[in-house]
Amino acid sequence: MATATDLPVSPLAPERFPVLPVVRGVEVTTHSLGLYKGKVRDDLLVVHFPEGASAGGIFTRSSTRSDDVDRCRAALQAGKGRARVLVVNTGNSNAFTGAAGVAKNDATVASAVKMSGCDRHEVFVSATGVIGEPMAPHVISGGVETVWRNLRDPDWEKVANCIRTTDTFAKAAGETVNLNRRNVSIVGVAKGSGMIQPNMATTLNYMFTDANLGPVVCQALISKLGDLTYNCITVDGDTSTSDTLLFFATGAAGGEQIDNPDDPRLADFVAAMHRVLLDLAKQIVRDGEGATKIIEIAVEGGASDDSAKVIACSIANSPLVKTAIAAGDANWGRVVMAVGKTAEPVERDRLSIWFGGHQVAKEGQRSADYSETTATRAVAGDEVFIRVDVGVGRGKATVWTCDLTDGYVKINGAYRS
Amino acid sequence: MATATDLPVSPLAPERFPVLPVVRGVEVTTHSLGLYKGKVRDDLLVVHFPEGASAGGIFTRSSTRSDDVDRCRAALQAGKGRARVLVVNTGNSNAFTGAAGVAKNDATVASAVKMSGCDRHEVFVSATGVIGEPMAPHVISGGVETVWRNLRDPDWEKVANCIRTTDTFAKAAGETVNLNRRNVSIVGVAKGSGMIQPNMATTLNYMFTDANLGPVVCQALISKLGDLTYNCITVDGDTSTSDTLLFFATGAAGGEQIDNPDDPRLADFVAAMHRVLLDLAKQIVRDGEGATKIIEIAVEGGASDDSAKVIACSIANSPLVKTAIAAGDANWGRVVMAVGKTAEPVERDRLSIWFGGHQVAKEGQRSADYSETTATRAVAGDEVFIRVDVGVGRGKATVWTCDLTDGYVKINGAYRS
Repeated sequence: MATATDLPVSPLAPERFPVLPVVRGVEVTTHSLGLYKGKVRDDLLVVHFPEGASAGGIFTRSSTRSDDVDRCRAALQAGKGRARVLVVNTGNSNAFTGAAGVAKNDATVASAVKMSGCDRHEVFVSATGVIGEPMAPHVISGGVETVWRNLRDPDWEKVANCIRTTDTFAKAAGETVNLNRRNVSIVGVAKGSGMIQPNMATTLNYMFTDANLGPVVCQALISKLGDLTYNCITVDGDTSTSDTLLFFATGAAGGEQIDNPDDPRLADFVAAMHRVLLDLAKQIVRDGEGATKIIEIAVEGGASDDSAKVIACSIANSPLVKTAIAAGDANWGRVVMAVGKTAEPVERDRLSIWFGGHQVAKEGQRSADYSETTATRAVAGDEVFIRVDVGVGRGKATVWTCDLTDGYVKINGAYRS
Repeated sequence: MATATDLPVSPLAPERFPVLPVVRGVEVTTHSLGLYKGKVRDDLLVVHFPEGASAGGIFTRSSTRSDDVDRCRAALQAGKGRARVLVVNTGNSNAFTGAAGVAKNDATVASAVKMSGCDRHEVFVSATGVIGEPMAPHVISGGVETVWRNLRDPDWEKVANCIRTTDTFAKAAGETVNLNRRNVSIVGVAKGSGMIQPNMATTLNYMFTDANLGPVVCQALISKLGDLTYNCITVDGDTSTSDTLLFFATGAAGGEQIDNPDDPRLADFVAAMHRVLLDLAKQIVRDGEGATKIIEIAVEGGASDDSAKVIACSIANSPLVKTAIAAGDANWGRVVMAVGKTAEPVERDRLSIWFGGHQVAKEGQRSADYSETTATRAVAGDEVFIRVDVGVGRGKATVWTCDLTDGYVKINGAYRS
């Protein structure tokens, strides 16, 4: 099985792994269980919250999702948003593995309960890798028991590396922000580079803060901000069976617990969390398989925000748009096509399109001052901005994607072999 | 602008252009108006039915469709399904050209009326090529008047070549069949190789018969059979602004006109027309840009036929499925993913998948007698069959697509430059 380390680093990767703040109340360890044959790399991540944490999460809507996803959703419900342990493995997604997949997770949860002394609803499990390969039930659970004694303060780069699959670089982001007169930290780690489409990407994503937030706040913030970030990125329109975005708040920064998501004291925290999530989401697009350009697509004038998002995703997922941009071709006619192919309301004769700052189409036809040279310049660099007004109402949405190159075809033809 | 002739012929192309029957009551001519700069090739097709014809059609549902499409639909309505002239040009789609596009078609229709003496609602216009480039209004209409005197019995290969754009081979199919104790002929020509997705492909498709069918029958047959053929093929999930499938019946074979689509005498004719349409549709898939394999995807057990079709198209359009098959990788886990990503009802734990005749997944997990070797053999050739039972109801659908190779990326990065 190919892994990230076989692939050249994306040309859109950040220059270096970020400097990240300390998040109090989080212990982690990573370990190699040998799930990648013939390759030594960490494939097991265990996170422990010794004093517990509040939790919220959003998950893939796939109808063929893994037991891991079902179990996280059920644990949030049954455990009323409390968390003590998170166990993640790469190398095998445990999706579409029937009873074997359930047995693996039963064993893993049992080991986590045994080691931490928590309730079983406080344990969260995730997995990513090949679909449909049953695992022996005790591989992961045995690993949890073995590595438990190694839990310590996080080395975020190790954590981010541990959860990579075809990612060509480790993804993390973080900020420190003032909440209720205390400095609190937010750190997120993510993996994902293909099978990326809203609801959600093939992504595993974990955010940690030491802010003192109740479970209701955790769930409200991750639902709202996940929709504006992770659910606005797409690489290939494919959706994974394992996508998971979990948010844990340890409260170790102290202070009064905030239980109302609309509490005005949260404003700065929410803005910071939004930036961290958007940073992570865009890193995933920057690592889109074979990507050479990141493309921001802003649609306005939609019948509603949801309608604008459908249209934006139609442009973002169009192979014809993505291959043109890869080639540096300002082929805005393909944007017209992609706008037209959804069932959403569009006023053809009021449709306007901009590439970068240059208006290429105006009110249903090519703009009178269209310049091929200027339009081409707008798609020449590695960041491309496309704006579309569909002339119907006030709905807006912005999504991010990457171009489609022969690198995508090569990577995905080779992944499993 | 790149055209078909620059590209190597698809490895999936038929060995030769088919032998086609004579369709009485049809005159055609093709001509070069020089719409492809620096290249001599036919780009104007004029078809004339001296005694008129009954007509039916189906069209793209794009909200940014061309005036040509709007006008064909309106003509069918206003002219009560009667036809006398069809004018097709390649080299410019006339889509997203605002008032200039309308003026071009006004002029073309006026010239056709002048030359043939028919009503304006008996004239049909189509165009394919680059989107958003306004044309001088009299280029096509002048061409129609110039070439009118050249109308004669069809050379179908010239007709099929004239309507090609990025097609690497000319597409046509035909049969002779007994209808109401007379031999009648059916011939279809088509173009299309990318921007191919139900409702409809980027295809222009014209079918001609000398059977004596009323307009109601023409429309009913093309609607029903188009849904089972053209609306079941996909190359890249992109939908054109110009797609048109028109069906003309001249009645020149004589006999009583059939006006009831359910007339039992039509059975053999309908079966033949279905075969011709499916042949053409599959030729389009065989010419999918960069294609090296044709893939048939049959979904059963859907909540309804429509639901099964959504799931089949989700598999057919998944870049991850298509790249795996291109590489000869029997990566059935990606089929699980593609089944799961739609909102359609699916029973994960009753899901079964076959590659060729080999059952790879059974009731929500890998089949007990799964063989990687057998599965790999099933995707090794240039025809791949995938069957999926989603375990819900009795809905069924079959769709056809091709694999995704770096050839697609290369062709579509170069098309406009």
